[in-house]
Amino acid sequence: MATQGQVITCKAAVAYEPNKPLVIEDIQVAPPQAGEVRIKILFTALCHTDAYTWSGKDPEGLFPCILGHEAAGIVESVGEGVTEVQPGDHVIPCYQAECRECKFCKSGKTNLCGKVRTATGAGVMMNDRKSRFSINGKPIYHFMGTSTFSQYTVVHDVSVAKIDPQAPLDKVCLLGCGVPTGLGAVWNTAKVEPGAIVAIFGLGTVGLVVAEGAKSAGASRIIGVDIDSKKFDVAKKFGVTEFVNPKDYDKPIQQVLVDLTDGGVDYSFECIGNVSVMRAALECCHKGWGTSVIIGVAASGQEISTRPFQLVTGRVWKGTAFGGFKSRSQVPWLVDKYMKKEIKIDEYITHNMTIGEINKAFDLMHEGGCLRCVLKTHE
Amino acid sequence: MATQGQVITCKAAVAYEPNKPLVIEDIQVAPPQAGEVRIKILFTALCHTDAYTWSGKDPEGLFPCILGHEAAGIVESVGEGVTEVQPGDHVIPCYQAECRECKFCKSGKTNLCGKVRTATGAGVMMNDRKSRFSINGKPIYHFMGTSTFSQYTVVHDVSVAKIDPQAPLDKVCLLGCGVPTGLGAVWNTAKVEPGAIVAIFGLGTVGLVVAEGAKSAGASRIIGVDIDSKKFDVAKKFGVTEFVNPKDYDKPIQQVLVDLTDGGVDYSFECIGNVSVMRAALECCHKGWGTSVIIGVAASGQEISTRPFQLVTGRVWKGTAFGGFKSRSQVPWLVDKYMKKEIKIDEYITHNMTIGEINKAFDLMHEGGCLRCVLKTHE
Repeated sequence: MATQGQVITCKAAVAYEPNKPLVIEDIQVAPPQAGEVRIKILFTALCHTDAYTWSGKDPEGLFPCILGHEAAGIVESVGEGVTEVQPGDHVIPCYQAECRECKFCKSGKTNLCGKVRTATGAGVMMNDRKSRFSINGKPIYHFMGTSTFSQYTVVHDVSVAKIDPQAPLDKVCLLGCGVPTGLGAVWNTAKVEPGAIVAIFGLGTVGLVVAEGAKSAGASRIIGVDIDSKKFDVAKKFGVTEFVNPKDYDKPIQQVLVDLTDGGVDYSFECIGNVSVMRAALECCHKGWGTSVIIGVAASGQEISTRPFQLVTGRVWKGTAFGGFKSRSQVPWLVDKYMKKEIKIDEYITHNMTIGEINKAFDLMHEGGCLRCVLKTHE
Repeated sequence: MATQGQVITCKAAVAYEPNKPLVIEDIQVAPPQAGEVRIKILFTALCHTDAYTWSGKDPEGLFPCILGHEAAGIVESVGEGVTEVQPGDHVIPCYQAECRECKFCKSGKTNLCGKVRTATGAGVMMNDRKSRFSINGKPIYHFMGTSTFSQYTVVHDVSVAKIDPQAPLDKVCLLGCGVPTGLGAVWNTAKVEPGAIVAIFGLGTVGLVVAEGAKSAGASRIIGVDIDSKKFDVAKKFGVTEFVNPKDYDKPIQQVLVDLTDGGVDYSFECIGNVSVMRAALECCHKGWGTSVIIGVAASGQEISTRPFQLVTGRVWKGTAFGGFKSRSQVPWLVDKYMKKEIKIDEYITHNMTIGEINKAFDLMHEGGCLRCVLKTHE
């Protein structure tokens, strides 16, 4: 390609300061170094984790930066030693890497590869601990190792999932975060079995994906819990069979659920990031075996608590990141499942916009009617 | 037997009030009703749970009562409908029942049978919600459905494990609580695998049994954590390979363990009942897969807490009661393992006394050198 080895100047949405509108700027994207991949991002969606860091509440948030971590694109060029993808490959950048070599990857017990984490956590690339993004020579930090609110981005090769080139990138971009997180929480972390009773706290996109996953796993009852009753009609389409609005009850929601289910649910999922809800999600579980999975990301410094008796009497408290999926190995598998119509994606996309409308898109995200908004990054 | 169907007058240690010395009294033990078994207790050990209720800190504690839940004896008589044991059978009373009929027993997921819990929690028998113990007509409450600090006790038939009559009752009485709890926490709840790194918080009897269980499971490192360094020499004999005294460090003990183990332990066990230690036990676990099991019983009202990030990054928080063993089914199996010298019991017994010395025995329990003290209940 003509751009290979060159600095590319392109559009990106830059977060200069917490809580200030993102600014569409012409930025410079340096060529990929050894073990790096430069990707032309075609579509990116928005996720609450972007909004969280943008809000300034994330103590690890670095500014100025380029946010975004749920996207799809095409490899523009690769750095030295990159063998698993080449220019033209269709890919999904993955904020959770998979190197297949580290202690984590080789454990067989987790998807939390540690290879590039110290760099991605610091907003830089491993090779030289520097950013590939700049504006007139001033560096802009990377975010989550992905930075997809840009027409071009540079990521580590261990963070790139090569996918079926037939897959529509404006849809499968959702396989960069929300959809795998919800499905994996059910399939990999909780391992919901046929007949199980499931409670889902928070009916946003991830909560609905959890419902879809639970339905496909054969759950007998899928109880949606949300303080916005307007979400209930939509939730039915994703498998939710019963609805509970905590505002309709005087007693604690965990007690409501225990009463509704003759002792508690088999599995519960917290999809909000609220530590009080995390407690309720644990305590609504059935004595002896109920398992609660934390998916939501709580604000920094907040803590979960409960009486230890809850655990001594058999409840299990877990969490999940990227649904426990091995990113490079399993995102392509999820793409194939989508192509075979075995999992939903289109149904989670309620809005389509361009990257120029990104601030409006973030406003929309906080409204009840919006699930995922997909932004087109090129004209 | 001559006593069958009769009220038996015998010696028992009665707890009249919290924290006041137990009083050896002549008490009356009524005959077993339908579904009940009267047992001649020959040997009983002391456990911290007895001391906890005796202290008055247990909000469910009822006085006057007969404490004790780790014992062995011989069936004296049985009530109507009791088919699985008969007079003369050697048995271990089990505070955790196993009815094989309730939702819990049939789940295949837990040992926490619910059949008689409402009665045992209230210090009475299911049949008539009354006690079988009295002194001159004044009732004395049961405790944990066992009340073994008595020469005779009455328990529900679902709480009686029939064992090999060859087994020495002065030893296998420990299979009523401490030994199964520790072994089961490792084998059933954590499922420690060969090569695993294990941390044990608290090197009392249960902590040592956990070490024994971890050793038999093939753990590669078994790290004992205790603030009493005198316990370390004994602990080696049970499998502990390394010792850490939190008092020797300025940094939090979880950090000490993470540093010692290149990222954290695979499994940790809290054997104290201290909520701060429970937190440390979770947080010393390895990211991605470390599992912490709470065994200790915390004081009423106390809560555990941590940052949810600990769980989202793959740690699992669990608890165990009676080590997850199905009591009636598996206590006899543990007796057989002891008879085949596959598990230790004798090594946990540091003192032998008579029931008349029970107050002295409780004093001993709080000293570092005492593991289990077994009381002979008959001359």
